[in-house]
Amino acid sequence: MPDLFPPRPTDKKRLEEGDTFAPKFDEHGLIPCITTHAETGEVLMFAYMNALSLQKTIETGLVHYWSRSRGKLWLKGESSGMSQHVVQLLTDCDQDALVARVTIGKATKGGVQASCHVGYPNCFYRAIPTGTGEEADLPKLETVAQKVYDPDEVYGDS
Amino acid sequence: MPDLFPPRPTDKKRLEEGDTFAPKFDEHGLIPCITTHAETGEVLMFAYMNALSLQKTIETGLVHYWSRSRGKLWLKGESSGMSQHVVQLLTDCDQDALVARVTIGKATKGGVQASCHVGYPNCFYRAIPTGTGEEADLPKLETVAQKVYDPDEVYGDS
Repeated sequence: MPDLFPPRPTDKKRLEEGDTFAPKFDEHGLIPCITTHAETGEVLMFAYMNALSLQKTIETGLVHYWSRSRGKLWLKGESSGMSQHVVQLLTDCDQDALVARVTIGKATKGGVQASCHVGYPNCFYRAIPTGTGEEADLPKLETVAQKVYDPDEVYGDS
Repeated sequence: MPDLFPPRPTDKKRLEEGDTFAPKFDEHGLIPCITTHAETGEVLMFAYMNALSLQKTIETGLVHYWSRSRGKLWLKGESSGMSQHVVQLLTDCDQDALVARVTIGKATKGGVQASCHVGYPNCFYRAIPTGTGEEADLPKLETVAQKVYDPDEVYGDS
């Protein structure tokens, strides 16, 4: 499957400014993917793809990840119905990260559009206070979003 | 330095919904950070922090990364002047990724606001065609942005 993607150009200019798509997979065979909402720009989630999930994503236009916890190909939305439809897939200068700009399919149950399994619209619902200059204190997280669905209803008790 | 951050809660609900900031550093001591423009929402870049750079970012409100290629603490903008000022720092459900929402300092030379060393406003300036269904063909990257500064002028020849 990794044959799909060519060897990485050794020339930095070709890698950074050429049209050869030569993604870098890490020592676990994974490349990080930042998924954003194509309309609002919000960062929905962050996950990893292997060569197979990247190939499936390119071919189908539906985002596939590699689930590290389950060790398997993960078609986003296969349980929840909240699939991710690629509007644009981008890579960065050194081609070791991806951005997937997506729209979201409606959940089979509840009809909401979300991407986080905890019930929030996206996974980044807690803020870390910064700029306090107080080295000794551990910063406490502040929840800055509201849940839009009940995970028990969408995912069941599994 | 990692003493700054507490042990990870073993209880999933506490990890995902509590106020304890217990970031997960990978086997290299790093956590991925997605940096977005606080005003436009665009994904500017993707890099890594170690415990020291995360601590410095929290204390100063200026984004510090860990440069994997140079093996050193990296205050973004120290060469280019294009520093990143934290408006909001977020973590995700399982606390193994960060989003830094920032504004950008003006370059010491040229006065532009950008985040990619190649000269583009952000690192994700090339698109991968999707949904073609043509398994055999390698997708060719398409450049979808324009350079806003000359890296040779900002970084010199170093």
